Amino acid sequence: MSQFRVLIDTNDEKGLVNKVSSVFYKLDLNILTNSEFVDKENNKFFMRSVVDGDVNLEDISSALEDILPQGTNIDVIEPSKKNIIIMATKEMHALGDILIRHEAGELEANILAVVSNYDTLQSLVEKFDIPFITISHEGLDREEHETKILECLATFKDVDYIVLAKYMRILTPRFVEAYEDKIINIHHSFLPAFIGANPYKQAYDRGVKIIGATSHFVNNNLDEGPIIAQEVIHVDHAYGWKDMQRKGKDVEKIVLSRALKLALEDRIFVYANKTVIF
Amino acid sequence: MSQFRVLIDTNDEKGLVNKVSSVFYKLDLNILTNSEFVDKENNKFFMRSVVDGDVNLEDISSALEDILPQGTNIDVIEPSKKNIIIMATKEMHALGDILIRHEAGELEANILAVVSNYDTLQSLVEKFDIPFITISHEGLDREEHETKILECLATFKDVDYIVLAKYMRILTPRFVEAYEDKIINIHHSFLPAFIGANPYKQAYDRGVKIIGATSHFVNNNLDEGPIIAQEVIHVDHAYGWKDMQRKGKDVEKIVLSRALKLALEDRIFVYANKTVIF
Amino acid sequence: MSQFRVLIDTNDEKGLVNKVSSVFYKLDLNILTNSEFVDKENNKFFMRSVVDGDVNLEDISSALEDILPQGTNIDVIEPSKKNIIIMATKEMHALGDILIRHEAGELEANILAVVSNYDTLQSLVEKFDIPFITISHEGLDREEHETKILECLATFKDVDYIVLAKYMRILTPRFVEAYEDKIINIHHSFLPAFIGANPYKQAYDRGVKIIGATSHFVNNNLDEGPIIAQEVIHVDHAYGWKDMQRKGKDVEKIVLSRALKLALEDRIFVYANKTVIF
Amino acid sequence: MSQFRVLIDTNDEKGLVNKVSSVFYKLDLNILTNSEFVDKENNKFFMRSVVDGDVNLEDISSALEDILPQGTNIDVIEPSKKNIIIMATKEMHALGDILIRHEAGELEANILAVVSNYDTLQSLVEKFDIPFITISHEGLDREEHETKILECLATFKDVDYIVLAKYMRILTPRFVEAYEDKIINIHHSFLPAFIGANPYKQAYDRGVKIIGATSHFVNNNLDEGPIIAQEVIHVDHAYGWKDMQRKGKDVEKIVLSRALKLALEDRIFVYANKTVIF
Repeated sequence: MSQFRVLIDTNDEKGLVNKVSSVFYKLDLNILTNSEFVDKENNKFFMRSVVDGDVNLEDISSALEDILPQGTNIDVIEPSKKNIIIMATKEMHALGDILIRHEAGELEANILAVVSNYDTLQSLVEKFDIPFITISHEGLDREEHETKILECLATFKDVDYIVLAKYMRILTPRFVEAYEDKIINIHHSFLPAFIGANPYKQAYDRGVKIIGATSHFVNNNLDEGPIIAQEVIHVDHAYGWKDMQRKGKDVEKIVLSRALKLALEDRIFVYANKTVIF
Repeated sequence: MSQFRVLIDTNDEKGLVNKVSSVFYKLDLNILTNSEFVDKENNKFFMRSVVDGDVNLEDISSALEDILPQGTNIDVIEPSKKNIIIMATKEMHALGDILIRHEAGELEANILAVVSNYDTLQSLVEKFDIPFITISHEGLDREEHETKILECLATFKDVDYIVLAKYMRILTPRFVEAYEDKIINIHHSFLPAFIGANPYKQAYDRGVKIIGATSHFVNNNLDEGPIIAQEVIHVDHAYGWKDMQRKGKDVEKIVLSRALKLALEDRIFVYANKTVIF
Repeated sequence: MSQFRVLIDTNDEKGLVNKVSSVFYKLDLNILTNSEFVDKENNKFFMRSVVDGDVNLEDISSALEDILPQGTNIDVIEPSKKNIIIMATKEMHALGDILIRHEAGELEANILAVVSNYDTLQSLVEKFDIPFITISHEGLDREEHETKILECLATFKDVDYIVLAKYMRILTPRFVEAYEDKIINIHHSFLPAFIGANPYKQAYDRGVKIIGATSHFVNNNLDEGPIIAQEVIHVDHAYGWKDMQRKGKDVEKIVLSRALKLALEDRIFVYANKTVIF
Repeated sequence: MSQFRVLIDTNDEKGLVNKVSSVFYKLDLNILTNSEFVDKENNKFFMRSVVDGDVNLEDISSALEDILPQGTNIDVIEPSKKNIIIMATKEMHALGDILIRHEAGELEANILAVVSNYDTLQSLVEKFDIPFITISHEGLDREEHETKILECLATFKDVDYIVLAKYMRILTPRFVEAYEDKIINIHHSFLPAFIGANPYKQAYDRGVKIIGATSHFVNNNLDEGPIIAQEVIHVDHAYGWKDMQRKGKDVEKIVLSRALKLALEDRIFVYANKTVIF
């Protein structure tokens, strides 16, 4: 008796639900949860089912392939721990939140390593017996620094996600393209407000009454990748920008961990620079 | 080309989604949205689909009846305005919010009448050319008063929902049973905290930092019916209970209108003193 | 026994609280609430006190003027209804919310008139015996249309605030300067995200998971005036932009009414394109 | 140049603000923040000021004592790390959040020890070089177990706060009275809803649409002490009670850490089983 996550996306047409559910029925699978979404505007169909039964993964895949239109993306996954690498700079809150969740067994993940351009977080990470790798950017241009990081990452096999837990350097297209839809970032503003550097300072200067955080996949345009999760908190005139920054940390870490969890549970579809999340 | 809402609840078993979707497919219906939920604990299956196509309502119903297990509740509905009666006492905010939404065409509803035990709200209601009926409770015991209201309600045919927009009197079982799962109330607390009279005073005395409102169907136990919607707002020590009451009005009206909208759109299943909402 | 609101803003220096409170003490005033804020960065001091006692407004003013530094803004106000004019276009929710609150006696305001470029809302407004003035923009350029509105507004004396309850036309600097810090707008996004036209469409295209509304004073730069209040709601991939627009209305009306209430209660200081709100 | 927190609570009377501010003025102190609250109902006055200047703590205290009414509580505090002991049982999230914040230097606290009735959390705590003390309750009645804990706590001097980070045993009056207003608990519900055991199960059974967490000081009545902070999250019918429990952890840890921070910064007054928080 095994559990499977079945992810399907394709162009919308009549009968898709019927076709998928007929496969489940024929294979005597039990549907635990079932979610569908049709994007009329783009004529796209998305479906995520969690099923269990006494079959092989391949049986489900091939039965679905037989019945669904050509060009359909079919992903059948047996839940297991995914491999992640965390990149961070100096701040402890987002990384620490992931480490504690990992330690508590809340995350379906193996943390292969934490990579940083400083050694500030080394002592924290090593408490948890996780490899910490410092790759300083000092004396290197962006290209050279990234080459070293990419070389380092290449030594790990089967990296499912790279989590930027307040990694404070911009990634080049070369890096982003190497890990398309696999890099999860936390931006410390309610995007698309306050793109770029020091968003809390920008928020303070603008006099907003709410600040937020946004977790998104990274694409080639800074802070413009598909949004996974957002959350906000209220502030008032008495908050200087450092107060905002301090209070913002709580929402940053919660939002990043929430996005990571969604990714680990195979709940996210990416298309048209957006996400569908079941 | 007509649109239909299809609501199904039954005991869970394998193949239900497949059966329903096969009916849609055979009738050449387009699925606009599709939501399912299985309550494992109670072995219950719920499904709500919105479909369109070139068929009669009866065709869908009978095709579903043919294929689904006996004892299944099948409801196929063509969207149209439902008939509601509003009951209120003296406060204007919840009633006013519904009146404005009705005037703006936001609600799929005909307001047949507003019934009150005072005439305070008469002038407001009549601005909108809606019948206002005062049934004073003065000099009557609860039983007598309710009898008069029930007689009044009986003069209206096909009442789909009775909305208690801050109607401040307790209904007896006789009344509640006459309109089972059809009476929508707004209680001015975050239930089950502060059941009963003057919840804001209770909340103030307890020193809570958050207050709320709860919309629920009315059953025989005061404030214990199935919850439809809840919302909260933050308060602090500077709020006296009248301040809470004042601030609470905003959340009361939003929550009641939200619950009403869910009911009018046939999005609510009631079972086990709970709601499933799609 | 009268109640007064005392508003003071000035450059910060030691002893200001002591000076103000000594005046209250000497005049035998009772302090009901007292709020202060010092903006270190700009070296500014703000204070709002509500006091009651057996004195004249002028006694308080002149005592404060005697003791506080030159250049201090001192405002002593006896609470009374302020005069407001509402401008709207076609949407009913924000205007309707204000009309109901006004009818319920929740607002310290006289609504002198509602001015619109369409007659869509006339029937609603006239239900409440409030003058409705249509000033169509058809066949007029922006300048000409605004001249007519300004002429109309000039016929009302002592207009304290102009409330833009979804008035969908941009105001020119001439208009804005005529009513500096007196025009309260509701923008249907979480500013500064989605400045300009059709913010819900913009939000949908960007794939955000939260939408919001912002109430602000209008200045010469579109959507860039001092923010008074903001609120947000969660959305997901299933929301088309029209769904966002529909759901957004609830937050728009609440935020606009909240901002209006703050203004009517003299709780807002404006400086440096921000607000201090007590 | 030192910074001081000045906390005053007393019966309300005219002139209190003036008296306090005159002391600050005479001692040439700079007021950084100033907050006051008058509880009319109970005729109580609360004030918290943060000041800096070139004086001794005793100078401020004695000057305030000279001028304020007898019976006034005056507390002048130089900010410094407070000593806390954490008690926990088996869950990692709330404790882990405090440990990471402590490690990051976010908390004005020394964690003297973590005390638990199980050794589950030992490995986590010792990573941070914080003493972990297991005091098993096995084979002991409540009285005996608590005696051992109290003896253990007595070995630590100057314990400012005891933080119950999901300590799952009920404390007896003897324990509570020994640390009045010094024990901070996190209860995993939106109190006063769902007092007692397994609140998520209770919430699930009631069918609520929102769950929450409450941090409060512990008094002799279970879950009825003065509330410090509360927060909520939305849930729906698809959440089983274990899902609620899982999701609830995020809000539990945030609320407990928030309450702890307020306590460490001397922002909380307790009276009438409530809190005033500046």
